Order: sequence, then structure tokens, then C-alpha cells
Amino acid sequence: MGELLYEGKAKKMFTTDDPFVLRVEYKNDATAFNGQKKAKFEGKGRLNNAICTKIFHVLQQKNLPTHYLETISETEQLVKSVDIVPIEVVVRNIVAGSLAKRLGLDEGTDLGKTIVEFYYKSDDLGDPMINDDHALAIKIATEEELTEIRRQALAVNKVLQELFSEAGILLVDFKLEFGKLKETGAIVLADEISPDTCRLWDKETHEKLDKDVFRRNIADLPETYEKLLSRLEAVR
Amino acid sequence: MGELLYEGKAKKMFTTDDPFVLRVEYKNDATAFNGQKKAKFEGKGRLNNAICTKIFHVLQQKNLPTHYLETISETEQLVKSVDIVPIEVVVRNIVAGSLAKRLGLDEGTDLGKTIVEFYYKSDDLGDPMINDDHALAIKIATEEELTEIRRQALAVNKVLQELFSEAGILLVDFKLEFGKLKETGAIVLADEISPDTCRLWDKETHEKLDKDVFRRNIADLPETYEKLLSRLEAVR
Repeated sequence: MGELLYEGKAKKMFTTDDPFVLRVEYKNDATAFNGQKKAKFEGKGRLNNAICTKIFHVLQQKNLPTHYLETISETEQLVKSVDIVPIEVVVRNIVAGSLAKRLGLDEGTDLGKTIVEFYYKSDDLGDPMINDDHALAIKIATEEELTEIRRQALAVNKVLQELFSEAGILLVDFKLEFGKLKETGAIVLADEISPDTCRLWDKETHEKLDKDVFRRNIADLPETYEKLLSRLEAVR
Repeated sequence: MGELLYEGKAKKMFTTDDPFVLRVEYKNDATAFNGQKKAKFEGKGRLNNAICTKIFHVLQQKNLPTHYLETISETEQLVKSVDIVPIEVVVRNIVAGSLAKRLGLDEGTDLGKTIVEFYYKSDDLGDPMINDDHALAIKIATEEELTEIRRQALAVNKVLQELFSEAGILLVDFKLEFGKLKETGAIVLADEISPDTCRLWDKETHEKLDKDVFRRNIADLPETYEKLLSRLEAVR
């Protein structure tokens, strides 16, 4: 079933017979606060795989380039092999989490403007926030790549805001990673989009439908993710 | 002699008879680490006033817009009244200080590319680093103003790198503030440029010629600033 290439907090990546294709396996583990808080939840891998699959299908329909190929089991996807750009791209529509602290704003404030933040992926440095000049100086991306990443991140935001809105959900913020296709070098959306990587609030009640229920001990994680999945599946 | 408008760590600002003109008085106080380390140095006000005067004269000769009008005593300048844009603009040519920590780079690394950083001026928040989207979202500057601030900061960097180079000195990094002229709203360089706000190293020995001698207890502050002033005065 291929060689284990990488094991992260919530996923394993395996090689396949095709050098340009990898197999992703979603795990049942949840972590928070840089791995300081950990737990296992029966069904989490299945739920994230299903939610992420739904999201990648919608992005594909809108012709946004992603690494996604197909979902091959309850917990597994095939994806195109990429070189990950070591930047965590955070897109924010509503103030929450670290932005509330950084700017002294109340959680829930509608920004009236989408904010894109770049963080340098480095466990040793604690994923520091960087600007374009930093990224260029340490040569983790070119100016053209940063422009393309920002453009795609905003396009993904638009599509997902619409999708979640139809499910009665606010897309508060989310984290993206991009990669360069091994075959062509083209920038595509990689990694996952799931309640592990998004903040999602019910439009009316602001009930949290994402990993914050685990981070902040608010509600049962699999129940929350199951609710989110059924609301997404009801769309279209 | 006018009303005290503002007293900062190293300067006082007074009104004058002209509503568009303020008087700046350089103090003998030195502070570091957000005011946690403090000292008074006989002659510091005079030295910073002289060094800053020399720098503003050079910038004027190069037609870069500043708030500076004239130096009226050993410790005083007249400047145009501005509304300060609440952004600390840090320009970096060589890695030092917080950038070394943020990106895990060695102090002294030549970046091969100038980095411009924006920090939101807020004592309560600890002057957090921000990007353009943050500045726009909290409405502390417009997109045009950010572009103009970045353009002027890079132009100032070029002129000062040349000036200091002629004095055998490396301009490692420095902090700028910009303001909007009360009269016209035009963006001009404000605040001060001095060894309090720059990192300056001897080209050959990397001897520090700035406030780091006080921050890090390396050498006598007035002797260091006197040495810097005489090297600058020898230029042209």
C-alpha cells in the first residue's frame, strides 16, 4: 500500500505506484495548541475525509486548481504530489483567535475586508507571522508565487463563503497550504480544508462547528463534525 | 515657549505661535525594552539633535519630504505639525534584533534584499507586527498611503545607506514614522532618525554605534553617539 512519506497530526501520506500521486489517510487524532492538547476521536478521520472531499469537489466545479484527485475509501484520498510552499496562509473574514489578541479587537467583529496572513511553517520558530519581504528574503517563494497564492486564497474564500452560507454557516477564518505540482511546478491548493483548519459558526446562533469545540472544551468533536457534514451534504 | 503637546521617551513636543509648526526638544533620557530599562545621559539630547539635523539636511538635499524645518538650539528643532500614521516602519538591510529571532537567522546576515516591516503603534498591544491587510482593516492607513509610505521608506534607506557608507558605517536597520501634514494631508517622514532609532555598525569591525551599546551594556552611550556624530560630520 505504498511507503509512509510523512505522518502529521491528523494525516498520513503514502507513496503510490504513480510517482506523481500520493495517498492521504485521515487519522482519528485531534491536537491543539501546537500539539500540547491531544485526543483520539472515533470517526474523526472519516468525517474530515468526507467534509474535505465535499469541499474539494466544490472547488473543482469552480475550476480552482487543487491537489485533489479522488476519494478511495472512508478515510483515504488520492492527491497529486506537490512540493509544499512552507507558508501557512490564513484567510480571515471575521475576527477570532490570534487576530483578536494581535489587534485588540472583539471576537465576532466583521472585518468588512478579508485579511490574508502568511505564517512561516517552522515548528522550531513557532510558525511566526511574516510579510512578503520576509518570504522573499528567505527564498521560500518568489514574488509571482506569492501573488498567485494570495489570488487563489481569495478565490477559495469566495467559493467557500458561498458554500457555507448556503448551509447557514459563517466562514470566520481558515488555514490553507499551497504546493507546486511535481509535474509542472504550477501552484495548487494542497493539504486539507476541514473543521480542523477552519472556524465555522452557525449564522444565527454563532454555535461553533469546528475544532474550537475541542480546543475550548465546548462540545463533543465527532457530534459537531457530523452536524457540519450533514449540513454541507444538504447543500445542492 | 508654547504648550507641551506630548512627552515621549526621548523627546518633548510643544506648540508654537504658528498652528502648523511644532517645537521638538530632545531629552537626555534613554529607555530600552519598552521602557523597562531607563537612564539619563548628559549630552544625549544635544547629540541626537545634531545627528538628526545632519540626517534631515541630507534627506532635504535629496528632495525627500520630511517634517523638518530648522534646528533652533543645541537641543531643539522646529518641525511641521502632522497627524502621525500609527505605524512603526522598520527597514532592514542586515539581520539583527527581533528579525534574527523571528526567522532563526544569524545576526549580521546580509539579507541581499531590503525588508520593510509594519508594526501597529499601540503600547497596550505591545506594537504588534501587522501586514497591509491589517492596516486597511483597522483603517489606520489607505492602500495609497501604505504604498507611499513604503516607497518613501525605501528612498530614505537608499540615501542613508550612502551617507553612512561614506562614514564607514553599515546601516543595519532603522525605524521610521510617517505623518500627514496638517496643512495638505501629504505623507512626510516625521519623528526622528538617530542612533536611538537605527542600528549602525562600523563597516570593518562591526562595532556598534547606536543605542544597542546601552541596551546590551556594551559601551558608554554619549561617547558612542559623539563618535558617530564626528564621523557623520566628516562626510561632505
